[in-house]
Amino acid sequence: MNENKSYDIADLSLAPEGKKKIEWSGREMPVLKLIRSKFAKTKPLAGITVACCLHVTAETANLMLTLQAGGARVILYNTNPLSTQDDVAACLVKNYGISCYAIKSMPREKYEKYINSVLNFRPNITLDDGADLIATIHKKRKDLLNNIIGGTEETTTGVIRIRSLEKRGLLKYPLIAVNDSETKYLFDNRYGTGQSTIDGILRATNILLAGKKFVIFGYGWCGKGIAKRASGMGAQVIICEVDPVKALEAVMDGFSMMPSTEAVKTGDIFVTVTGDKSVLDKKHFSFLKDGAILANSGHFNVEINLGALEKITGKKTRVRPMLDEYLLNDGRKIYLVGEGRLANLAAAEGHPAAVMDLSFADQALCVEYLVRNKGKLASKVFKVPDAITDKVARLKLNSLNIKIDNLTPEQKDYLSGWEEGAFG
Amino acid sequence: MNENKSYDIADLSLAPEGKKKIEWSGREMPVLKLIRSKFAKTKPLAGITVACCLHVTAETANLMLTLQAGGARVILYNTNPLSTQDDVAACLVKNYGISCYAIKSMPREKYEKYINSVLNFRPNITLDDGADLIATIHKKRKDLLNNIIGGTEETTTGVIRIRSLEKRGLLKYPLIAVNDSETKYLFDNRYGTGQSTIDGILRATNILLAGKKFVIFGYGWCGKGIAKRASGMGAQVIICEVDPVKALEAVMDGFSMMPSTEAVKTGDIFVTVTGDKSVLDKKHFSFLKDGAILANSGHFNVEINLGALEKITGKKTRVRPMLDEYLLNDGRKIYLVGEGRLANLAAAEGHPAAVMDLSFADQALCVEYLVRNKGKLASKVFKVPDAITDKVARLKLNSLNIKIDNLTPEQKDYLSGWEEGAFG
Amino acid sequence: MNENKSYDIADLSLAPEGKKKIEWSGREMPVLKLIRSKFAKTKPLAGITVACCLHVTAETANLMLTLQAGGARVILYNTNPLSTQDDVAACLVKNYGISCYAIKSMPREKYEKYINSVLNFRPNITLDDGADLIATIHKKRKDLLNNIIGGTEETTTGVIRIRSLEKRGLLKYPLIAVNDSETKYLFDNRYGTGQSTIDGILRATNILLAGKKFVIFGYGWCGKGIAKRASGMGAQVIICEVDPVKALEAVMDGFSMMPSTEAVKTGDIFVTVTGDKSVLDKKHFSFLKDGAILANSGHFNVEINLGALEKITGKKTRVRPMLDEYLLNDGRKIYLVGEGRLANLAAAEGHPAAVMDLSFADQALCVEYLVRNKGKLASKVFKVPDAITDKVARLKLNSLNIKIDNLTPEQKDYLSGWEEGAFG
Amino acid sequence: MNENKSYDIADLSLAPEGKKKIEWSGREMPVLKLIRSKFAKTKPLAGITVACCLHVTAETANLMLTLQAGGARVILYNTNPLSTQDDVAACLVKNYGISCYAIKSMPREKYEKYINSVLNFRPNITLDDGADLIATIHKKRKDLLNNIIGGTEETTTGVIRIRSLEKRGLLKYPLIAVNDSETKYLFDNRYGTGQSTIDGILRATNILLAGKKFVIFGYGWCGKGIAKRASGMGAQVIICEVDPVKALEAVMDGFSMMPSTEAVKTGDIFVTVTGDKSVLDKKHFSFLKDGAILANSGHFNVEINLGALEKITGKKTRVRPMLDEYLLNDGRKIYLVGEGRLANLAAAEGHPAAVMDLSFADQALCVEYLVRNKGKLASKVFKVPDAITDKVARLKLNSLNIKIDNLTPEQKDYLSGWEEGAFG
Repeated sequence: MNENKSYDIADLSLAPEGKKKIEWSGREMPVLKLIRSKFAKTKPLAGITVACCLHVTAETANLMLTLQAGGARVILYNTNPLSTQDDVAACLVKNYGISCYAIKSMPREKYEKYINSVLNFRPNITLDDGADLIATIHKKRKDLLNNIIGGTEETTTGVIRIRSLEKRGLLKYPLIAVNDSETKYLFDNRYGTGQSTIDGILRATNILLAGKKFVIFGYGWCGKGIAKRASGMGAQVIICEVDPVKALEAVMDGFSMMPSTEAVKTGDIFVTVTGDKSVLDKKHFSFLKDGAILANSGHFNVEINLGALEKITGKKTRVRPMLDEYLLNDGRKIYLVGEGRLANLAAAEGHPAAVMDLSFADQALCVEYLVRNKGKLASKVFKVPDAITDKVARLKLNSLNIKIDNLTPEQKDYLSGWEEGAFG
Repeated sequence: MNENKSYDIADLSLAPEGKKKIEWSGREMPVLKLIRSKFAKTKPLAGITVACCLHVTAETANLMLTLQAGGARVILYNTNPLSTQDDVAACLVKNYGISCYAIKSMPREKYEKYINSVLNFRPNITLDDGADLIATIHKKRKDLLNNIIGGTEETTTGVIRIRSLEKRGLLKYPLIAVNDSETKYLFDNRYGTGQSTIDGILRATNILLAGKKFVIFGYGWCGKGIAKRASGMGAQVIICEVDPVKALEAVMDGFSMMPSTEAVKTGDIFVTVTGDKSVLDKKHFSFLKDGAILANSGHFNVEINLGALEKITGKKTRVRPMLDEYLLNDGRKIYLVGEGRLANLAAAEGHPAAVMDLSFADQALCVEYLVRNKGKLASKVFKVPDAITDKVARLKLNSLNIKIDNLTPEQKDYLSGWEEGAFG
Repeated sequence: MNENKSYDIADLSLAPEGKKKIEWSGREMPVLKLIRSKFAKTKPLAGITVACCLHVTAETANLMLTLQAGGARVILYNTNPLSTQDDVAACLVKNYGISCYAIKSMPREKYEKYINSVLNFRPNITLDDGADLIATIHKKRKDLLNNIIGGTEETTTGVIRIRSLEKRGLLKYPLIAVNDSETKYLFDNRYGTGQSTIDGILRATNILLAGKKFVIFGYGWCGKGIAKRASGMGAQVIICEVDPVKALEAVMDGFSMMPSTEAVKTGDIFVTVTGDKSVLDKKHFSFLKDGAILANSGHFNVEINLGALEKITGKKTRVRPMLDEYLLNDGRKIYLVGEGRLANLAAAEGHPAAVMDLSFADQALCVEYLVRNKGKLASKVFKVPDAITDKVARLKLNSLNIKIDNLTPEQKDYLSGWEEGAFG
Repeated sequence: MNENKSYDIADLSLAPEGKKKIEWSGREMPVLKLIRSKFAKTKPLAGITVACCLHVTAETANLMLTLQAGGARVILYNTNPLSTQDDVAACLVKNYGISCYAIKSMPREKYEKYINSVLNFRPNITLDDGADLIATIHKKRKDLLNNIIGGTEETTTGVIRIRSLEKRGLLKYPLIAVNDSETKYLFDNRYGTGQSTIDGILRATNILLAGKKFVIFGYGWCGKGIAKRASGMGAQVIICEVDPVKALEAVMDGFSMMPSTEAVKTGDIFVTVTGDKSVLDKKHFSFLKDGAILANSGHFNVEINLGALEKITGKKTRVRPMLDEYLLNDGRKIYLVGEGRLANLAAAEGHPAAVMDLSFADQALCVEYLVRNKGKLASKVFKVPDAITDKVARLKLNSLNIKIDNLTPEQKDYLSGWEEGAFG
């Protein structure tokens, strides 16, 4: 690696494969494509530097090209060591001149070092998936604050972190919680994570899901999506939850509900998707059946306590790509998908482009919104403006050639009135 | 009917049947039962008069008995002419001395007259399902306002009405939107309306749902619930919507999405559940197939424009209980379930007790909350306090003997922190 | 009752209601209607006496009218005391002059007595649903054999009985196992029993199915249908089986599989549909949870051992129409739907007309086939001829306005060849 | 390649990877494992040469090792150019000394040449998946017939071929149609093909299935399985059929039913699984939407008429592994998965081991049965003996630790009787 280069990627020669991937994804991202062609004309991001800490996938590449089309200088970095697609990174650097710092399985030291290379571009806008840029700026790089217009956050876990910052009165620039847009969490988290988690598990294991006991930790939007898909593949779904309302929903949706210490005794496959740490912990491991398969689809690789697992492990073997066998000291074998990192990104290709189209259309329009409202927004966590959510949804329906109804003036009146009731 | 009596019901001799029904429902309402026995000891509603405008069903009766156990004087009235269960009304009057004004198929004049009888009790608390008491007080009985502590509203349509009152600055007393509690709308609207709408259609028509094209207008919580159940019975579900996000959800859930003017050409069964008026209107009727079946599960009987339907009808015949055949002038026959009123209440028995247990537990605890906070709440629309929602959900899980996990202190810390990220 | 009358029914004045029901069902039976109008022209059953032992429902009435239109004299009798619709019976007698012996809740003595009245008509063809006519003829009325051309059998249980007769060499006339036609069991048993069993349970209990543990004994076509619908209503389905292949299917379909003695400890609702006796027996009752609901959808009321249940019962109360509470000596309350007889017929209206259209089209065409082949068929159990099955399916698709593909000559050749393989 | 070697595979050095795969699959094949250890003791195949023409996958390898354990000399050959896993082939040759002729993407000439190498081993038993060995022996190698004890056939297409041979009176040795065993087609065809076809399409395309129109040609067991899984992933399923009964089933299962010429206008993804040729033909291609994705899961690559497709194609590009873009002359782009060969084997890893465990347990026991009954069986197509089916199902349930009920003597009597009816 050349320390002077404004990128660090695995292999530039992979660019042609990456280009094919980016174009293939682009085919399923018609809304982002529309925004991109509008950006190319209006250049709303001219002169703006955007630093992005996102999974380096073909879909993300399409977002990068959209921001670039809008006039922005774009830097892309990834804190998840397994989610980078090296060919995509190569193409971004080689074909599009985008600074990219991401190598699949890059060692930890690099992550810590490169975040400074990224921030040294002195970004005006930050895009985060997990809030690592935001956190680093707030912890160590306050010098950058006066350059920053605002930022966005893509995922549930990151939103929890930035709300915590806000609550403690520490937040120093305006942030938009893209995750909380209806055109994001209702689709990306549910249908995206749902399908791609199943996909990751299948590629890693090739096991039959029909008839298996499939335990999901967390019945939020991601958990609901995974449950629906696992059930759609014929698995018996078991849910573990800490929230009583979500637990009741799981029950009424027809799933088994168990305390986690019971679920581990009976499950065949386990997926954590809670946003919290040590969801599968020491107290659970001793009950797992021989042959149990563990996977995580939560943002960080802390949901399965790998340290605790390793302590009781005699020997670890890679039995298939992205699948490790832990031979425990007591003789049981436990299997871990994708090193406990996001199974859909580590073992498959992440969320399908068709849902990322929605999420990243939200992102692109939010960046434009932040720039247009420069200096007018307080240092708070904002929702995605309703107009953006509505616009993204309508563009998507158009692209699918689906028509919906419109309220008549009479119907609008009725909805906004209070006098008309049972007596007419 | 004796004008001096403090009730008007169909037939007191039906009381024994009503008692059986109330007890049968009570069996599935363990949370309300718990609250009732606590209320019986602490009498939190002593001296309070509660006027309720609710569907007079066995489940509602259990709520009435709970409020009465808490020390309240309870008056029950119903503005929906088809949802009253006469035997339940009889039992409330005869066995429990509750003033009740409700007769199945009562003529319209009575409704208008009896609302004053009810309000003449000078209630301190109002309970509404559709906001009729609230609207009448605000329109015609402002004299009562100084007696009123607050009120609750049970359903989506009523919440729309009270928010409109609030928005226009006309609201004169505090209201709690029970509908918007997670322990209400996530369960009652989805699983309750879902099952009971199917049940109403089956009792009214006895037709096979498998293979039928089942068109649902509205993909809110109720619409989602009905879609799930119709699909679970083997129907092909088609959704009509005006909201682009809900429309996209319907598509991603695997349903067909059509403009209503297309859907009417292909559908076999139609259910409206939008909260708006004239959803099935003149423009649709001309396209309906011979034999099409129409039903409404929205709050008021305005969703299907019956006036317009009658204008093109030659002859109307009741072909089964709660099913009318409209022989149109052009020779087609159209069938209407339950006179276009809530199909689940008109043709079946309304929501099953197990979901009403949640909604009515919310109601009972909100009434207690209003009384306890008398004079402290502004004239606004309030959410159900989180503590009530959480309590109701936990009690319900307990009653089902279902255990959930608890966060460890470490896990709580993690969720409230922001510093721990990809670098540990 | 007048012993000289050629019928015995509850009340002739119910005929107008019955007529409406028959016509309503007829609307959903287009295939039978087509056959009826063809029969009316060709009179293939002229001079033939047909004795039918079937459930007296609106759908059956449409079959009777079809046979009558074909020229047959028709006698209808019912051995199931709860499946008769009295208004339908009245209409058949009054409006159509069909001899009918069936009263809802008729005492046992009448059944035994009237079977002789029926057989005294000296039928040429027998139609059975449960093989009672066939069995009686073979046991006690061999005098009739020389008049008999053949018979049909409608249901799984009856087919088991007639195959047993055949296997023991006792069968004395040709029988067609209508149940085993693909246009019968794949639809009637699965979609018919599936929907109508759920319907019966809902009408009898009005309980919420979502989240309930719903135990099904038997995973044949009926059990599969019920499982699909119960699951579609949000229940957690548990299957008990004796056949290892069916048990594996249930597992792979995502359901829980338990020995019955385990299932009774956890289930909320139980449905037997095995065709066998004492499926829920003494050994199970002691484990049932307080409040458990039992229903049977198998042909005879022997699947739940009611004698054994009554022995441990202190008091029996009818708590809702078609729902009895058994207060056991140990204090638990158990609920029984429809006296343990076919829940769909006792508590609801039996299979929807749209599936009976297929089954009864098979029946009508099989009767015509038996008459046309008089004297040519051995005393064996026959399958429904493929040509009939195919014809019924095609007519049904036509009536639904559904088009399918046809094989090209090239494709037909390919399917009948063996030489073309991997090498072209 | 060394012409003298008794194998031809891609690369012996892949053996270690293959070994891992075989062992990983073995984990999910407990029934086969049991049979293998029994065979190892009893050596029922001592002295027998078994020639197998099967997909060379990890699961097949486990069957090969079972036959070898039973004392057989085993030769493995593959006629499907895309289904061979080269590492598995390497392991079989290197670690187990099994003669193997199979290379992924092997040119056609080799197939034709090697079939003779295989048959020159003069097999006593043939195992086929598509009937290529059988057909070749009957066409060109009748010299081998006196050595042959019998054979088995694994798949629907092959069974159609051998029944055609039998029907024409040409069959020269006894064959067992393993495909038609309930422990085969009910599981392998439905749950195996269902999951693995979805898996293959996802790996080839990574597209979101939710909301897509997914067209399936053929609603046999495989089609039913794919429909269930596609629907479980949120797709809108459309079925095309030629059989009226299967078409009706599809309708009642809630799917859209269209003639293929309509379906092609609306579909996004197409899967053929009919066992016939040119199911997607010239007449369809002109209607496909730009971007349509085509895949085949039927046995041979004749279901999509690739010749006709290529005639209207301007340029063909591989855009992803196992995905080709056909740029049509009219500008539309069409995508083909896995060169039109079995998508599950070409683009994924074939059926999961857990279902192949059932199919291959049937195979192993049928081979044993043929050897044991040497000389006693006519030259006909036989069903798998019921005892084998039952045994395989029971062993599988045991391995899953699932217990089922047993009939009591009283219940057995009841089922075999005919006298007990409505009158007790």
